[in-house]
Amino acid sequence: MSQHRHPGASDRAGAVPALPDLPEATVARLPEYLRALHNLADAGHETVSSEGLAGAAGVNSAKLRKDLSHLGSYGTRGVGYDVALLVDQIEFVLGLTQRRAVALVGVGNLGHALAGYDGFASRGFRIAALFDADASRVGEMISGLAVRHIDELPRVAAEEAISIGVIATPAPAAQAVAEQLVAAGVTSILNFAPCVLSVPDGVDVRKVDLAIELQILSFHEHRKASLTALPAAGGSALTALPGGLVTPDTQEAIGT
Amino acid sequence: MSQHRHPGASDRAGAVPALPDLPEATVARLPEYLRALHNLADAGHETVSSEGLAGAAGVNSAKLRKDLSHLGSYGTRGVGYDVALLVDQIEFVLGLTQRRAVALVGVGNLGHALAGYDGFASRGFRIAALFDADASRVGEMISGLAVRHIDELPRVAAEEAISIGVIATPAPAAQAVAEQLVAAGVTSILNFAPCVLSVPDGVDVRKVDLAIELQILSFHEHRKASLTALPAAGGSALTALPGGLVTPDTQEAIGT
Repeated sequence: MSQHRHPGASDRAGAVPALPDLPEATVARLPEYLRALHNLADAGHETVSSEGLAGAAGVNSAKLRKDLSHLGSYGTRGVGYDVALLVDQIEFVLGLTQRRAVALVGVGNLGHALAGYDGFASRGFRIAALFDADASRVGEMISGLAVRHIDELPRVAAEEAISIGVIATPAPAAQAVAEQLVAAGVTSILNFAPCVLSVPDGVDVRKVDLAIELQILSFHEHRKASLTALPAAGGSALTALPGGLVTPDTQEAIGT
Repeated sequence: MSQHRHPGASDRAGAVPALPDLPEATVARLPEYLRALHNLADAGHETVSSEGLAGAAGVNSAKLRKDLSHLGSYGTRGVGYDVALLVDQIEFVLGLTQRRAVALVGVGNLGHALAGYDGFASRGFRIAALFDADASRVGEMISGLAVRHIDELPRVAAEEAISIGVIATPAPAAQAVAEQLVAAGVTSILNFAPCVLSVPDGVDVRKVDLAIELQILSFHEHRKASLTALPAAGGSALTALPGGLVTPDTQEAIGT
């Protein structure tokens, strides 16, 4: 991920990519900072301290300062960050200065919810087309868009310059839909189907698996219960454990 | 996160928690392994190699082996992992041996989709109650459950032993709902509202922000475009950039 250049090399037009190769974790936090900055701007703030912005975004301020240093934003001592400038910088890096066209495939319950989710439009995206493989759904109007048959994807993707596809189909259909999206020129996919997609290099996939989020919370519930269990309960929990979990080997492995 | 104990200390009932303090990234991957293992079991496989399981879960096999070593599962050379045993171990660690009751607050489009999402029931969770603050929605039947008024949360949470709350309300309402959930004894929250929740220690929050997922993909779209841009285009992209991004300082910061 790292790049090494002589200072000033980036001034040679075309000699380097226009964007730094940011750590993925930093990229994932930039939208949080942007949302917090928009709220601050709406509230009339022209500057914000790193502590204030970190608090609004729910991260620690040291991490925020390092993230923003990747953008060349260091703030001004005693003043903080210029809210409007930082908004411009983050929106540029995230490519939000252009409104991206999104195709949504699969208009079941989740697809309906996503098609009606106004958080997309307000944050730089336009749901440009809805698709489904079920002919009986074709023509149905959802949030002002008519559902089209998936076979129309190649033509519509070209017409609407669609670069991002959202898959809200059942798992068995998702891989085929991903391949249709890629064949239609889509290079970023947000996948809500509970399965792993295989895509060519150069295609980015983000996965949202709602049950996985609950299972992660379930771990924390289970762990909190085990930590607060009485010795007897703790013991019985241990004996209830399928073989191997608390062998000395495991204890060594923990914390590595 | 790390724990240091004498080998065998964990045999003293109650002397240690029943569960290891796993790295968060490992916890986040366990559900992926579990889903892949269920698919393998359904296909009649009794054992699986680390490479096979890693491929099915979409991670590299070295990472998979390290993750599973935290559970004391090392597989058998030349044989691999016992699918059924590994399913038991992961389900135990994730606390899925008991079916957890979930309360869903906010029954707009997204709430409807979540209430109807059969991925929850099939993976260890039971949507036990639906709540909304809008009295006109109270009594509405969604997926066999009647929507209740949020004021009923404390009584219902106790009756149903609800430990996980899902917030699908608009952002302005989310913090108040989180506080009502915590007051009702909920200690894990899955938040779909685009805002940061402040909760007491001991309460775990997972956040799913659909627009943020798209903004992260937008960064990759923007970056791919900048990398494939012609020198001239690259230059103009640079000049279009709000101040600071490609200063020597930034170049130094990149890759740290």
